Amino acid sequence: MILCEIGNTHYHFMHRGSIWRSPVGKKPEFKIESDDPVYAISVNDPAMRRLRSLKPVINLAEHIDLDTNYRGLGIDRAVACMAIEDGVIVDAGSAITVDVMQNGVHLGGFIYPGLMKFQQMYGAISPVLQKALNFAIEVEHLPQNTGDAISYGVIAPLIHTIEKTARGKRIVFAGGDGGYLARFFEDAMVDQTLIFKGMEKIIKEL
Amino acid sequence: MILCEIGNTHYHFMHRGSIWRSPVGKKPEFKIESDDPVYAISVNDPAMRRLRSLKPVINLAEHIDLDTNYRGLGIDRAVACMAIEDGVIVDAGSAITVDVMQNGVHLGGFIYPGLMKFQQMYGAISPVLQKALNFAIEVEHLPQNTGDAISYGVIAPLIHTIEKTARGKRIVFAGGDGGYLARFFEDAMVDQTLIFKGMEKIIKEL
Repeated sequence: MILCEIGNTHYHFMHRGSIWRSPVGKKPEFKIESDDPVYAISVNDPAMRRLRSLKPVINLAEHIDLDTNYRGLGIDRAVACMAIEDGVIVDAGSAITVDVMQNGVHLGGFIYPGLMKFQQMYGAISPVLQKALNFAIEVEHLPQNTGDAISYGVIAPLIHTIEKTARGKRIVFAGGDGGYLARFFEDAMVDQTLIFKGMEKIIKEL
Repeated sequence: MILCEIGNTHYHFMHRGSIWRSPVGKKPEFKIESDDPVYAISVNDPAMRRLRSLKPVINLAEHIDLDTNYRGLGIDRAVACMAIEDGVIVDAGSAITVDVMQNGVHLGGFIYPGLMKFQQMYGAISPVLQKALNFAIEVEHLPQNTGDAISYGVIAPLIHTIEKTARGKRIVFAGGDGGYLARFFEDAMVDQTLIFKGMEKIIKEL
């Protein structure tokens, strides 16, 4: 069984615990020999068609069954949520989504811009704020210079809001900046296979 | 006595309790007849020169004497801080600066992007996130749709961090979005003359 999550920039594959990715702009790379069908979810229609032209594909999108009142939840967020019964899921990529699950029910969530987007935004406000973010700041200490003040302005608000949202619930981080953000929490987990776990759960229920 | 704060976009004037502004791109408008000198602070050199060509100007920049370890604090922030002995100053414009004063000492501060900058940033991340911000959201309830999820992602993190920073201290809001943000706090004050109060204090000490 090959699992594939298709995002805006990459195919993400998993096969027997191995994970790899391949850019969406060209033919996806299958690093394994297998005639297994590919179970996929996608937010990228042309990339999904390209995958279909190479392999038999089972689209899991129609089988997502998340208990939620949220309208317009992205497929990737919904599938990651299905992997967690109780907890907060933070997926930190070009956008940072934070979702809350309780007894298998999705209670809602919010979207923060990706950390690297902020640097651009500060630069566009004023040349004085055109500084590299300092990822070594601590959120317990008030900044004492401009570079730290903008870095704190990006990171501390997110950390405080995740904390406040979690109310003691387990927090699971995924995405490119997930490992970095997890460092601010004592009991945090990082799991880059969350979305595949959600897909496996859907397949089991099929 | 005329007070003038020169920012990136406007001259801000105060004379005997009246406040008005005038765009920096052209000759500043004096809405009163007065031969009084103008006490000014400026982050905008060409606009300061233009003011000097019309009136005698006393530049207060050299007389700012704020007790702080912060390196590179903007003149406008420093002067606003001088108006407050104890409290948190939130100046919400194209950038949102948050500064903490305690016993007349500046303890540090951070910089968050201006609220309207976020809308652009979300749009640049994905067309799905190209939505108008909903300023009517409540920060106590988890969002249930994309528009609320990005609005919450802008506002709740800032509110939580101001709260956490204040630790019960008085919070004073200024700037274009100051009135809006103050609504999230029970005991908040809005004071659009904060910087002029700081200037008056400097003048008194001269």
